[in-house]
Amino acid sequence: MSGIFGMNIKMAIYGESHGKSIGVVLDGLPPGLSLDEAAIAAEMARRAPGQNALSTARKESDMVEIQSGFFNGFTTGTPLCARIVNSDQHSKDYSILADKMRPGHADYAGHVRYQGFNDYRGGGHFSGRLTAPLVFSGAVAKQALAQYGIIVGSHILQINDIKEERFNPMGVSDAELAELNTKKFAVMDDAVGEKMQERILQAKSELNSVGGVIEAIALHLPAGIGAPYFDSVESMLSHALFSVPAVKGVEFGDGFGFARLTGAEANDALHYVDGKVKALTNHNGGVTGGITNGMPFVVRVAIKPTPSIAREQQTVSLKEQADTTLAIVGRHDPCIVQRAVPVIEAVVAWTLWDLLLEAKKWEK
Amino acid sequence: MSGIFGMNIKMAIYGESHGKSIGVVLDGLPPGLSLDEAAIAAEMARRAPGQNALSTARKESDMVEIQSGFFNGFTTGTPLCARIVNSDQHSKDYSILADKMRPGHADYAGHVRYQGFNDYRGGGHFSGRLTAPLVFSGAVAKQALAQYGIIVGSHILQINDIKEERFNPMGVSDAELAELNTKKFAVMDDAVGEKMQERILQAKSELNSVGGVIEAIALHLPAGIGAPYFDSVESMLSHALFSVPAVKGVEFGDGFGFARLTGAEANDALHYVDGKVKALTNHNGGVTGGITNGMPFVVRVAIKPTPSIAREQQTVSLKEQADTTLAIVGRHDPCIVQRAVPVIEAVVAWTLWDLLLEAKKWEK
Amino acid sequence: MSGIFGMNIKMAIYGESHGKSIGVVLDGLPPGLSLDEAAIAAEMARRAPGQNALSTARKESDMVEIQSGFFNGFTTGTPLCARIVNSDQHSKDYSILADKMRPGHADYAGHVRYQGFNDYRGGGHFSGRLTAPLVFSGAVAKQALAQYGIIVGSHILQINDIKEERFNPMGVSDAELAELNTKKFAVMDDAVGEKMQERILQAKSELNSVGGVIEAIALHLPAGIGAPYFDSVESMLSHALFSVPAVKGVEFGDGFGFARLTGAEANDALHYVDGKVKALTNHNGGVTGGITNGMPFVVRVAIKPTPSIAREQQTVSLKEQADTTLAIVGRHDPCIVQRAVPVIEAVVAWTLWDLLLEAKKWEK
Amino acid sequence: MSGIFGMNIKMAIYGESHGKSIGVVLDGLPPGLSLDEAAIAAEMARRAPGQNALSTARKESDMVEIQSGFFNGFTTGTPLCARIVNSDQHSKDYSILADKMRPGHADYAGHVRYQGFNDYRGGGHFSGRLTAPLVFSGAVAKQALAQYGIIVGSHILQINDIKEERFNPMGVSDAELAELNTKKFAVMDDAVGEKMQERILQAKSELNSVGGVIEAIALHLPAGIGAPYFDSVESMLSHALFSVPAVKGVEFGDGFGFARLTGAEANDALHYVDGKVKALTNHNGGVTGGITNGMPFVVRVAIKPTPSIAREQQTVSLKEQADTTLAIVGRHDPCIVQRAVPVIEAVVAWTLWDLLLEAKKWEK
Repeated sequence: MSGIFGMNIKMAIYGESHGKSIGVVLDGLPPGLSLDEAAIAAEMARRAPGQNALSTARKESDMVEIQSGFFNGFTTGTPLCARIVNSDQHSKDYSILADKMRPGHADYAGHVRYQGFNDYRGGGHFSGRLTAPLVFSGAVAKQALAQYGIIVGSHILQINDIKEERFNPMGVSDAELAELNTKKFAVMDDAVGEKMQERILQAKSELNSVGGVIEAIALHLPAGIGAPYFDSVESMLSHALFSVPAVKGVEFGDGFGFARLTGAEANDALHYVDGKVKALTNHNGGVTGGITNGMPFVVRVAIKPTPSIAREQQTVSLKEQADTTLAIVGRHDPCIVQRAVPVIEAVVAWTLWDLLLEAKKWEK
Repeated sequence: MSGIFGMNIKMAIYGESHGKSIGVVLDGLPPGLSLDEAAIAAEMARRAPGQNALSTARKESDMVEIQSGFFNGFTTGTPLCARIVNSDQHSKDYSILADKMRPGHADYAGHVRYQGFNDYRGGGHFSGRLTAPLVFSGAVAKQALAQYGIIVGSHILQINDIKEERFNPMGVSDAELAELNTKKFAVMDDAVGEKMQERILQAKSELNSVGGVIEAIALHLPAGIGAPYFDSVESMLSHALFSVPAVKGVEFGDGFGFARLTGAEANDALHYVDGKVKALTNHNGGVTGGITNGMPFVVRVAIKPTPSIAREQQTVSLKEQADTTLAIVGRHDPCIVQRAVPVIEAVVAWTLWDLLLEAKKWEK
Repeated sequence: MSGIFGMNIKMAIYGESHGKSIGVVLDGLPPGLSLDEAAIAAEMARRAPGQNALSTARKESDMVEIQSGFFNGFTTGTPLCARIVNSDQHSKDYSILADKMRPGHADYAGHVRYQGFNDYRGGGHFSGRLTAPLVFSGAVAKQALAQYGIIVGSHILQINDIKEERFNPMGVSDAELAELNTKKFAVMDDAVGEKMQERILQAKSELNSVGGVIEAIALHLPAGIGAPYFDSVESMLSHALFSVPAVKGVEFGDGFGFARLTGAEANDALHYVDGKVKALTNHNGGVTGGITNGMPFVVRVAIKPTPSIAREQQTVSLKEQADTTLAIVGRHDPCIVQRAVPVIEAVVAWTLWDLLLEAKKWEK
Repeated sequence: MSGIFGMNIKMAIYGESHGKSIGVVLDGLPPGLSLDEAAIAAEMARRAPGQNALSTARKESDMVEIQSGFFNGFTTGTPLCARIVNSDQHSKDYSILADKMRPGHADYAGHVRYQGFNDYRGGGHFSGRLTAPLVFSGAVAKQALAQYGIIVGSHILQINDIKEERFNPMGVSDAELAELNTKKFAVMDDAVGEKMQERILQAKSELNSVGGVIEAIALHLPAGIGAPYFDSVESMLSHALFSVPAVKGVEFGDGFGFARLTGAEANDALHYVDGKVKALTNHNGGVTGGITNGMPFVVRVAIKPTPSIAREQQTVSLKEQADTTLAIVGRHDPCIVQRAVPVIEAVVAWTLWDLLLEAKKWEK
């Protein structure tokens, strides 16, 4: 099993890069949720390919057709299926890949796992294209979270060796997040963003690619969401985040930075603010013991460089059972970090909503 | 829900630090697995408290009593319950903690989540003591993996600012891992280990604590274990790893280091070795597209410093709804990294076994 | 949650009677399963409406469009989405039903559960039309079971007060089952079948409807499939069977008939036949302790009469919060038992396949 | 997997008839539930063996020791482990059963499923003794349901050929259910109950056993609990009921009786009563479309005769791979129906509570 996630709201994704359609069935959505279809389309557009020189030339409108579970402008409470037709496919570009395994890609591992039966065209089911249904699901989740006043936002923290500042873990303003959400290249400091984009274009010109780090934050999340152990916020969310292709690291609050801290430095002292318990610092990123503590929620995600590069690379031919070389042709992203931003946000929003519904079961 | 994990083999943990017993029900274990009880006891001893100046003075034998599912030396295939009686409890030490929330701990988040009904003695269900059932489960998993020739090992990579070398991602010898497994302080370079231990004792003397990083490796894992998306090796394993108290970061292969790499640097080129497809480098840590690729499997985990420190800290009194201070008394670990080593190994072993059983369903 | 079922292979159904499409995502299908699309179409045709005077006049081709997970004639092992476009909809017929609750239908219970947001057109998500994705799933399962030599078949045991003989619990021939599979009205004794059909047409002429019983059998199922307690064959299968609209009773082997038997009568004595342990009788219907025992597997399912009848019935108007009457117009089945036959078979086949894959995990 | 059940509250049972202990871990219990331990003990006593001539001579106090998740008289919200020590074991009685398979029992099916490694003593994990943890879980559920005013009760409807009246599906009084709950032999008509008990003793004297039917009812259940398809009330509850050893049939409302009804007879007409929608009849047993409709909830369960009888029966010797005979010695129940009454109630209460918590997620 690979395609179903969630405890209280479940998403079942399907599709291949060059199949008829990709999509998702969302099971367990509460009834009566009004969906703003323009806002959904805007989220889809943030991820869609073919927008500029930074991303693949493949053009997909990524228009979502809702098949079920949505009636008279509201969710019905029954399974909602959303479908995106694949249109701009150049299947011929990829036919060689049934034989020659692309380094850094899932080709070989997938060949073994699926016993040679997987659809290899354009990466098939492994394609980053499958993140489109995730973005749709997250767009629904964002609208649900908005009813509770919860906002999820994110920025590109790092591209290769170029970094901008982290979010202030004590919080950023709603307006700053809203502005980030509208940017084509989601950074707080546009001057740094320019350098990052130059770095991406440089990689492209060198037939290479670059990786990076995305940082997401959730504001106004109440305390008491999550659980210790297997359903901790970190467990559930890292599960979802590592489902996004190319993610290789996840950390919460100070994350790996905790290793160098002492307890006296790392412990977030508590005090009352307007009758509510708050922390004076936020090293823990809003989660202690697997449960939200009322502080801003902070997570960072490492994205590896796109494995598809046009340079000649050493690899194997399965057919000839021999070493060979491969120069990947086709349309590829020199960097997927900027396109992964709405995907990471979507996954964060979905998982937090799921955990919020979990907590509702115990409300008096 | 918080206490159940696994797809094909499920563990359901229970217990509180100062309750009658802690334990686990393992559901779905294959029948006919011979369990070496001495090896299990040895794993339990690696985690057990009260062994030296580096850890809490609480003494627990952590003797496991198997209640079911084990007959004539073999697993039966029916649920196996393992129980560990709590013995050395000083409940009086902790009674103040129902009121004063310990900074960096789950106290406040847990109070909200459990509506004030949680057992606060010694951290209750949030206690690191609950990792004992995980170690038991992992000890069973290790014996199962051994039948496939798979070995899991780990070392302390970093304590505060002191680091040793990473594992060679192309592999370490079985003997090295076996030796690490027997060490009281699991480092490859004992001279560095000495410095790490001094750093821990220094923190102790300063009424402080330190964090660190653990690196685990799995050898001889076949290609084709895992799946893309929600059941990826990284998704399942990070889910389990973030269930371990104090874990705040998880990365696979080069992890966050990928952010600085280009595709040309990061892609692991492939070649044939003795008729098998292998990679020339192992930046991906043995997993591509969520599926094992036949290379050594590498994961690193960040552990935050123990929040329990004897220094006075600023916090809140829930009873008085006012700010106050707290100096935690009781017996605590100045560092839990060294005790977390068998826990991380256990979780890795359990999850890899679970995924291995998943793959068996498709065997011809 | 309502739309996802299965342990090792999961189906996630979606759709409403008058929505754009209905369908299913199958997650966990083994790769390399060759699908005979003509055989699938034949199963779909067995259930499809509009075939004769016994069923609703609504005409739907129920042509399945596979969207994913199927490549070059084989399953890929990644999620397979199957979609059926709704075509022959008369939505105007049903608009009154948002107000007047149809007796015996889910209208009122669904209105409360979904807080008034459910799609009421043609019963919406509650429609028997949602059994089409089940039949598709079962058709895939049947082809998978055929690889193990396992056959599932069924017949109409009872329509109103007219009954035919039960299957011989010691087994029927493969040929008999194959013949039943091709019949438009699935009975062993066509003379009894004629009377049943007359009884259905009589009910139709009286603006009434009738219920019945379907009996299914699975042949050549190996011993050792299933488990005691919560994953027993009976637990898993009854779960799936009661998911089929209108099913109100499920029994295995002698079922409710066991109540009148003594142990001496009911116990199935054992003996060796060609080196295999077999039973001399089969009161238990092939399952003891929740596990298959190598005898034919027998289950019976009670189907209630179609609640939609054209007679005037007493009911309530939600809008006016008052009692009223209702004469349902539209196109309805005077009996759904004959159309439910392939649905019940599908559900049996799917669940047995799921349990078979479960057992594979423990194969040496 | 076999031992875990539930969507929102999960029970993980463990144990064998002659192991150290049997028990259950309950995960997901809401915090703050006050548990009346005397009421729990009373439920345990209803099921306990050794009470009179109708049941096995094995004496077990079935005293429950709660290990965790319960603090200061309230559930904590963390996993609650309940443990029952096995005491009165005559293991010698059973040793022959590793070889000779008892007809009607799980012995042979279990031998195949567990590859010969199952604990055969006293039926091992298959033993009806494992229903004790179910009764404990149900006792907790009953106390939770009581907070919503929901009551679950049941009676013995049939023993062999002796029957009493069914519950009035339009409802029985709370007092009647409360009285039934206290009866040693749970029938409404004690004169019929006397005959049933005579029938059981007659079977005992003839070295035989008898089966029967139990009918359960839940009162004051609100409308809107459950879902169509896979999480229907009938699906979830039948899943749980068929987990109880010896259950071979389950029906809701008129159940198999629906087969003989017409729609005009079976449809429950609706009307307003005190501003609430109610049905004029209750053929559907309180569930339409898988969702409760506010009418009393009615379910019946067929229990097969105890397979353990002292008569000589034909069977096989696995060791000699030959036919043989067996006369079961040991202590057995000539009828388990009366002891199954609290088990069925427990399972009904648990499942309804689980579905009630599911519905809470969508509360505004």
